[in-house]
Amino acid sequence: MFEHKKNLLHPVKVEKPNPQYAVLMQEQLGGCNGEVKAAMQYISQSFRAKDKVFKDLFLDIGTEELCHMEMVAETINLLNGDKVDATKVTSGEIETMTTFGLNPALINSSGHPWTADYVTVTGDLAADLLADIASEQRAKVVYEYLHRQIKDPYVQETIMFLLEREEAHNALLCEALNKITDDGSNRNFGMSEDSRLYFDLSKPRRYFDDPNPQPVEIKRDKHSSCCKKKK
Amino acid sequence: MFEHKKNLLHPVKVEKPNPQYAVLMQEQLGGCNGEVKAAMQYISQSFRAKDKVFKDLFLDIGTEELCHMEMVAETINLLNGDKVDATKVTSGEIETMTTFGLNPALINSSGHPWTADYVTVTGDLAADLLADIASEQRAKVVYEYLHRQIKDPYVQETIMFLLEREEAHNALLCEALNKITDDGSNRNFGMSEDSRLYFDLSKPRRYFDDPNPQPVEIKRDKHSSCCKKKK
Amino acid sequence: MFEHKKNLLHPVKVEKPNPQYAVLMQEQLGGCNGEVKAAMQYISQSFRAKDKVFKDLFLDIGTEELCHMEMVAETINLLNGDKVDATKVTSGEIETMTTFGLNPALINSSGHPWTADYVTVTGDLAADLLADIASEQRAKVVYEYLHRQIKDPYVQETIMFLLEREEAHNALLCEALNKITDDGSNRNFGMSEDSRLYFDLSKPRRYFDDPNPQPVEIKRDKHSSCCKKKK
Amino acid sequence: MFEHKKNLLHPVKVEKPNPQYAVLMQEQLGGCNGEVKAAMQYISQSFRAKDKVFKDLFLDIGTEELCHMEMVAETINLLNGDKVDATKVTSGEIETMTTFGLNPALINSSGHPWTADYVTVTGDLAADLLADIASEQRAKVVYEYLHRQIKDPYVQETIMFLLEREEAHNALLCEALNKITDDGSNRNFGMSEDSRLYFDLSKPRRYFDDPNPQPVEIKRDKHSSCCKKKK
Amino acid sequence: MFEHKKNLLHPVKVEKPNPQYAVLMQEQLGGCNGEVKAAMQYISQSFRAKDKVFKDLFLDIGTEELCHMEMVAETINLLNGDKVDATKVTSGEIETMTTFGLNPALINSSGHPWTADYVTVTGDLAADLLADIASEQRAKVVYEYLHRQIKDPYVQETIMFLLEREEAHNALLCEALNKITDDGSNRNFGMSEDSRLYFDLSKPRRYFDDPNPQPVEIKRDKHSSCCKKKK
Amino acid sequence: MFEHKKNLLHPVKVEKPNPQYAVLMQEQLGGCNGEVKAAMQYISQSFRAKDKVFKDLFLDIGTEELCHMEMVAETINLLNGDKVDATKVTSGEIETMTTFGLNPALINSSGHPWTADYVTVTGDLAADLLADIASEQRAKVVYEYLHRQIKDPYVQETIMFLLEREEAHNALLCEALNKITDDGSNRNFGMSEDSRLYFDLSKPRRYFDDPNPQPVEIKRDKHSSCCKKKK
Repeated sequence: MFEHKKNLLHPVKVEKPNPQYAVLMQEQLGGCNGEVKAAMQYISQSFRAKDKVFKDLFLDIGTEELCHMEMVAETINLLNGDKVDATKVTSGEIETMTTFGLNPALINSSGHPWTADYVTVTGDLAADLLADIASEQRAKVVYEYLHRQIKDPYVQETIMFLLEREEAHNALLCEALNKITDDGSNRNFGMSEDSRLYFDLSKPRRYFDDPNPQPVEIKRDKHSSCCKKKK
Repeated sequence: MFEHKKNLLHPVKVEKPNPQYAVLMQEQLGGCNGEVKAAMQYISQSFRAKDKVFKDLFLDIGTEELCHMEMVAETINLLNGDKVDATKVTSGEIETMTTFGLNPALINSSGHPWTADYVTVTGDLAADLLADIASEQRAKVVYEYLHRQIKDPYVQETIMFLLEREEAHNALLCEALNKITDDGSNRNFGMSEDSRLYFDLSKPRRYFDDPNPQPVEIKRDKHSSCCKKKK
Repeated sequence: MFEHKKNLLHPVKVEKPNPQYAVLMQEQLGGCNGEVKAAMQYISQSFRAKDKVFKDLFLDIGTEELCHMEMVAETINLLNGDKVDATKVTSGEIETMTTFGLNPALINSSGHPWTADYVTVTGDLAADLLADIASEQRAKVVYEYLHRQIKDPYVQETIMFLLEREEAHNALLCEALNKITDDGSNRNFGMSEDSRLYFDLSKPRRYFDDPNPQPVEIKRDKHSSCCKKKK
Repeated sequence: MFEHKKNLLHPVKVEKPNPQYAVLMQEQLGGCNGEVKAAMQYISQSFRAKDKVFKDLFLDIGTEELCHMEMVAETINLLNGDKVDATKVTSGEIETMTTFGLNPALINSSGHPWTADYVTVTGDLAADLLADIASEQRAKVVYEYLHRQIKDPYVQETIMFLLEREEAHNALLCEALNKITDDGSNRNFGMSEDSRLYFDLSKPRRYFDDPNPQPVEIKRDKHSSCCKKKK
Repeated sequence: MFEHKKNLLHPVKVEKPNPQYAVLMQEQLGGCNGEVKAAMQYISQSFRAKDKVFKDLFLDIGTEELCHMEMVAETINLLNGDKVDATKVTSGEIETMTTFGLNPALINSSGHPWTADYVTVTGDLAADLLADIASEQRAKVVYEYLHRQIKDPYVQETIMFLLEREEAHNALLCEALNKITDDGSNRNFGMSEDSRLYFDLSKPRRYFDDPNPQPVEIKRDKHSSCCKKKK
Repeated sequence: MFEHKKNLLHPVKVEKPNPQYAVLMQEQLGGCNGEVKAAMQYISQSFRAKDKVFKDLFLDIGTEELCHMEMVAETINLLNGDKVDATKVTSGEIETMTTFGLNPALINSSGHPWTADYVTVTGDLAADLLADIASEQRAKVVYEYLHRQIKDPYVQETIMFLLEREEAHNALLCEALNKITDDGSNRNFGMSEDSRLYFDLSKPRRYFDDPNPQPVEIKRDKHSSCCKKKK
């Protein structure tokens, strides 16, 4: 079960209202790599995780993403100011000014509503953890793009906090991937020659240097190295 | 900020796996009147609620809806059994058997993914509370339809619990509506004759008995009565 | 069956073309609280309404909403002017300038296409009437937001007409709700203690003053008061 | 403005309830080639039609499609019977049994909600009329597929009526296309050699017998022949 | 099977970056009448085309549309410039600046993601060819709208090339339609009086001059004329 | 530019028609982890890939995925048989029987149309390659689920071929990831303490054994190991 506390996981503020930048921030509230997506992906994966260890991981991170969702929403709320005025917005969505009355909503920066099509879940632990690692990387990239487009030091600080939390999640997810023994989508599915073919379908030049590429297998020792600590 | 506890708000179990009924239950996980919709609607409305009293209400109920989401998901998870086998499903969505690997996903009973288009938020307190009351009523109706189609006593008990919680939410929401003084969408917007016209556009018969219907205004005393306690 | 007359239900005009404001008006043509949504919701509910009285109501209002749809569309058409030129649009959707050739289309102000996910229908009369009342309130709120953002006196007049018609619809819908005897989703579904619980899940502060909230029941006398006439 | 009469354009009935076939019929209510799509496409095109002759055509046909929508919806309503029971449905959508309470809804046979993405409008008369002719042909094809899958003589009769109305619409639309003088997308846009090239990109065999295909132009005399009356 | 060559079907370049115009061009990459839609429609229709002649046609054109997709994407890529900066965009979608990092994506000019709802396929050859002819006409119209809104001579040249290719496709598609003998949706489906009725549902004025319109039939000799070569 | 050859990349056949299994196979044609998704993701990523080496990789694999799309579509086409008959389908989508006339369409097994929301592209090479590796893993999982549910030896053989090709793609993608020097989303973004925090938000138990988890960095030597060849 979930509980809520009124304080944010990490306080946020803004220098002054900035409705246009609020539109950009919507991308991390209701967008394809945003916090609602992250929360719903981890929580969905927890629904069937049989191993208590992984279920706990998905719920720890998923719950933190709900906290991030609140931080992004409050930042947007402050940036929106106090007046519905579409002339303050120079690109992107304007439903904030027509329908939502400045209330942060579950849409992206262009106004596309959040959809569960963003959430990847397969019930296969290795596949889902890989999806999560890739998702964290994309979320980090979007925060970098957003960071380059705002001068407000408080918003920058919030973005940096959220961006670096993705790093911490990668640490947890890689450790988790390392715990997986070779089952599920990792088990060798009887490799045939087919998995060793190379089709050079785009000419000219041949991307692949090795004339005989080998199929790979996702296994513990690979991923342990996948989580090398920094020097 | 949110926190999570491993125990469910209310325990759930099932008599035996029932993949077909799991498909029906998906409606209340990822459907238009389901628990994710309810949670996201209340939480979204909390993002801008200025009055701490209403913000607390939205968060109390929204957090409970997240707990309901877990209960529905766990019920589906148990009903799904342990084998991907589309032949066990005789109607409705089958992505559970093709993509999700028995993991409860954010789709409805026909496989339509959850979308934020289900969430109604306007930033106007009276309008949003009315939307919430109407949403609770629809959720109750869907649970009634589901209740009629399952014999499993444990699933019935879970459905009854969730159905009756909607009742409790209505009590809270009506009390909240009563607290609103006449501002926002309630303020008289300068009624003209236009709001007193009646267009009898579908013939034959005239629905409306009163030849001169009067416009209405949503105000405190009306809603206090709207929340009459039962005898 | 439907018939059409060339004159609008209420004439509309504009002071001069205003492509940017046309984008805002799209919200009430193809948006989540717009006229197509309203028309389709009432007409859908009429498809199964067994009681001729309610079927007539849904068709009277639904048909009027089709008339409103025409008024909004013609207003957008006039505001769009005569030249596809995206530079005239400073925020929101631009398909009007790339695909639709200035033809009013079924999209919202950000370009999201109209979807039946906006329509709420359950086949339960009480639930559907509540949904309609809440929908009218939201439509009214959106018109208020739009009214604040335009100086054109003719567009203002059209918005006021449409806004006040929502008031008239509320009068009809409340009277309808009053006619419902306690069946469908109104019948007492055997209240248990569960519907009297209160979960205080967001800390600090406790929203709910009553330590023992009571479930509510939607019944005639409540709603008759729900439709108090103005003094 | 629109008006409504209680009688259907053409009466419908069914031999007996058939919930599974009701699901198939949903395709022509809320599907991509269904009656709501047709109605919304013609009505949308009428929003900007400057020539009164074409505006009248779009409104005549669009209004008739609304009448067809009612006929399809009533047929589904009768086929749905009186009991929410998903076991009566053996494939396709089941929201009718979980959310809509047997009320015909704006979804297709698999449960995908109706979307304005189905509607094609460009503000160019020739392009829009061609789209309408093609749409009528698709609607006819879907009715043929549905006709093959039902034995109920009353449903067959309704399908035949609707199918043949598409024929009548084609007669009107072709006559309309014939009235267009060479403007809009018909005007010669300065043909260059580029429009005479032929790329034979799929091997083996060359589809095109003429080594030097000529570009075409949509013009009056072509379309007059396009609407040859039957012998 | 498909193969790829690094050179474009036709070279493209731009005078200088123009992020706002890149947004408009997105309409023909990921929009409802764009190149991905065209490619997917022809390729989908090839999946079941039994007659090798038509299968070849669908694959010749479908493959060319993939080449057009590349040309449009590269044009957008060049127009996007080298810096994520939403202030360079004055209307329409901004995910290019928030999520896609200047990478051309499968969205339209307002940010709506490409959807298979744009693709029309019925498995009926006549219906599908008519849909293709209508689609080419719409694509041509959109290119005309885009052409009017750009001064860059290189972009204009690319648009003209693509626009005129639609002409060539119409030549191929009409020839194909001429090859169809009267089967599929062309066969006479037993015309009754119903297909000769005329409902004059929008008043005043009667669009249709002929008091007794005749149903039409799509047959060879009609379409051969439908593809008259230019003088 | 693309070219097409009539032969499939790898021949497919089926023992006998199996319309129900065709519905399951739709998941890999128009589903979230299917071949159209894979093709569109690689091709989209190629649109901006500046380094010729990576652009070639994306196009080699993307083009192969188009070939896989054809193989899956032809398998579905053969399984669909020759008669539109919804009674042959016992769960999942039935538009194949109502609208598509047995033509394989871009929808998933429940009838949800393909959407570009499935495609992940960020313009950041490391993030996009990680997304591709994760996507291949999911595609492999779905093929495993499908393989368990069919006895037809020819369909099994096709599934195995496609499944093992994902393995080969992983080999290529890992080699590619190894080529990336630390830029883009890999560059150290100034790690602060924030990225070293651990929030234990789901109780009881603490997933993470290391009281002080370290942020990770995606760098060459890690990924080289990520692509260990099999013994």
